[in-house]
Amino acid sequence: MQPYDGAVTDDLSDGPVAVRIGVLGCGNVGAPLVDLIATQGPGIQARTGLSLEVTRVAVRDLSKPRDIRLPIDRLTTDARSIVDDPEVDVIVELIGGMEPARELILAALKAGKPVITGNKELLANAGAELFQAAESAGVDLLFEAAVAGGIPIIRPLRESLVGERINRVLGIVNGTTNYILTRMSEGGASYADALAEAQTLGYAEADPTADVEGYDAGAKAAIIASIAFGVGVTAADVQHEGISGITETDIAFAKRMGFVIKLLAVAEQDGADEISVRVHPAMVPVEHPLAAVRESFNAVFVEGAAVGDLMFYGRGAGGLPTASAILGDLVDAAVNRHKGSHASVGQLGTAAFRSVDDVESAYYLNVQVLDRPGVLAQVAGVFGDNRVSIRSMEQEGMGDEARLIFITHIAREADVRATLHTLSELEAVDRIGSVLRVIGRD
Amino acid sequence: MQPYDGAVTDDLSDGPVAVRIGVLGCGNVGAPLVDLIATQGPGIQARTGLSLEVTRVAVRDLSKPRDIRLPIDRLTTDARSIVDDPEVDVIVELIGGMEPARELILAALKAGKPVITGNKELLANAGAELFQAAESAGVDLLFEAAVAGGIPIIRPLRESLVGERINRVLGIVNGTTNYILTRMSEGGASYADALAEAQTLGYAEADPTADVEGYDAGAKAAIIASIAFGVGVTAADVQHEGISGITETDIAFAKRMGFVIKLLAVAEQDGADEISVRVHPAMVPVEHPLAAVRESFNAVFVEGAAVGDLMFYGRGAGGLPTASAILGDLVDAAVNRHKGSHASVGQLGTAAFRSVDDVESAYYLNVQVLDRPGVLAQVAGVFGDNRVSIRSMEQEGMGDEARLIFITHIAREADVRATLHTLSELEAVDRIGSVLRVIGRD
Repeated sequence: MQPYDGAVTDDLSDGPVAVRIGVLGCGNVGAPLVDLIATQGPGIQARTGLSLEVTRVAVRDLSKPRDIRLPIDRLTTDARSIVDDPEVDVIVELIGGMEPARELILAALKAGKPVITGNKELLANAGAELFQAAESAGVDLLFEAAVAGGIPIIRPLRESLVGERINRVLGIVNGTTNYILTRMSEGGASYADALAEAQTLGYAEADPTADVEGYDAGAKAAIIASIAFGVGVTAADVQHEGISGITETDIAFAKRMGFVIKLLAVAEQDGADEISVRVHPAMVPVEHPLAAVRESFNAVFVEGAAVGDLMFYGRGAGGLPTASAILGDLVDAAVNRHKGSHASVGQLGTAAFRSVDDVESAYYLNVQVLDRPGVLAQVAGVFGDNRVSIRSMEQEGMGDEARLIFITHIAREADVRATLHTLSELEAVDRIGSVLRVIGRD
Repeated sequence: MQPYDGAVTDDLSDGPVAVRIGVLGCGNVGAPLVDLIATQGPGIQARTGLSLEVTRVAVRDLSKPRDIRLPIDRLTTDARSIVDDPEVDVIVELIGGMEPARELILAALKAGKPVITGNKELLANAGAELFQAAESAGVDLLFEAAVAGGIPIIRPLRESLVGERINRVLGIVNGTTNYILTRMSEGGASYADALAEAQTLGYAEADPTADVEGYDAGAKAAIIASIAFGVGVTAADVQHEGISGITETDIAFAKRMGFVIKLLAVAEQDGADEISVRVHPAMVPVEHPLAAVRESFNAVFVEGAAVGDLMFYGRGAGGLPTASAILGDLVDAAVNRHKGSHASVGQLGTAAFRSVDDVESAYYLNVQVLDRPGVLAQVAGVFGDNRVSIRSMEQEGMGDEARLIFITHIAREADVRATLHTLSELEAVDRIGSVLRVIGRD
């Protein structure tokens, strides 16, 4: 076997070319990745002529027992030494977080080494800097695993849909919250019980904030928007609403009206190329493909101008599915390197964000009022005064009170907020419950 | 603007590089493609530095009025002259069928010109020859549009999943039959009425044989199997069963038991690397993601060893979605050509096909028997004698007769056939109705 000498050639007549891989981090993704490279290596070599070899692995603790098929002398605690090692051709970063991942990746790119990462936090906060560094160095920076785990979505967006105008992307990109909402919808569980169950199963952390308040989904939304629209979007640009306020009443009304509630990452671009990126729970019609995405599965729904609706569905997390996505990128990077080529996100443009006031959606509103004549007319009048058009209304008696459930037509967010403000000041309005966006019946 | 001189370079400092495209065929895909290249060209140029220009278009009839944004002198009836034109860099083949498409593509590849095609018939019958020709010439042969129209599936299989062992692919890849089955399931239509409706809407041809008997899906199954397993599979290797025998009774029983009936293209590979490729209607559990694929939409469900379940959903046909897939390939080919690189299916191996007798599935069987004591025991005994294990049974009285609906556990096809043969000879068995595979509850 010949070590790769940097020559640009398709000539494999001297036998397979070794691609020497340095893996930074050996946790729940790194360990299955090393295994997968071992088991799938022969098939990959037969298809590409390239022999993938894990040369060095950085770990936090050398003394920790590991079930990994590698000689112990390939492990080190010094990640930087792997990046700097001239005998390492490609770097896989699985450390996560901002530092030292950022500086290790920048050093690797600068040294002309392709980098594969699944680090959504880093990409959502410093993506533009990393893409620029990869572009300057002329090497690959691939990150399929950063959004929706094992589902191929970054490559289709970058390559298959490069000629497509994308109007909107709707993603179920957090498995924990999708599991909780599925348990609430199908199992009749309360939010607290469903969360506790997710924690028992290891789907949710002891502190579930990053998942249930939409921060994890927000980082993924920023990456999706950057790639779909070709502009720089960071996690800080994303508005968040989580699912902790969803009640059993909301779930029951959703079901009665033919909806399920899902936490969606939304990235949209209007006719003036202004974009909006946000995460919030939404009512999804049961006949919409996203409604069938259950348990901890993820899916990304893409609305293209020419191609129409597309959806990509699969496992959004888990060591093995994520390792599979990393391996796909690794083969791509190895083949590109061998051919002297590289994939490129290119220079991201500057995003023009739509004012939050102007973002439009249909809404579900749950308003508790005193049950007496004239109240409905008064409430409906407030909607009309604020240019919010009502699509449907249901009334449910509750003793002296009544619950009014409204679904609106598409309305400006500022107008809906003004409506809610005025309603809250009406003497006949007792309480405003959940306010949720409605998608898919526009 | 500089014409492309064949040099391998990333240097775009002299301004955009023109990529001169020859389009063979200008029907329901070619015309929207020319439009899409015009409208999306500036964005593609900004991202890639390449300027796509449709230089020449081959048509069947020059006198036919066309709504196409091209000078009339770019049209010709001589497709071969476009392939041979030194001023054409890339060929898009949209003629369809075997000849002259095959010889035009081979000539283009031999001349070192990348080819994009959506020709499923040609690929399913002569794919290996074409892939080999592309490999020898060192240029791209891309065909995303050949399977499931606008849905990115070929690229994910070739690239994202290159390191994945794929166990099974289940595809709803024919929109006509999916529309008919959706109308039967949701609208209560008979097969004949649903077919007539599909014909009125233009989803089905006057002679619907290719769609309803599974030949169209079979060609796509052959292409999917070739790419997923890396072996040569042709349309002739695919077993077919169509949907023309599906009755309203089958639809009703499916619904009652929590299934929907879908026409599936199935490609599977067992532990011994033997493969089976077939098209048949199947009972799909309502909670399976494929069950939510309605109307004329398509989807491809991939079961990978590491990545788990994936699904790719979207428009499987239509001029604009198909043109979008062609454009994605076109940009890819143009970028690869500019970098002196190319994508490769590589040499396909020889497929080892599993004997039809040994293919395994769960089954739904509908058996009409005389309603008298002892018959059920007799019928159940026949299943047992043939090693077919019953998972569930429902009995429905019909006067002097009874209908027995069986769902089996996974069984060998030969054993199920033997069971049916013996049952048909029993005096107490009046009639054997539909026999359908059941997926997803193994």
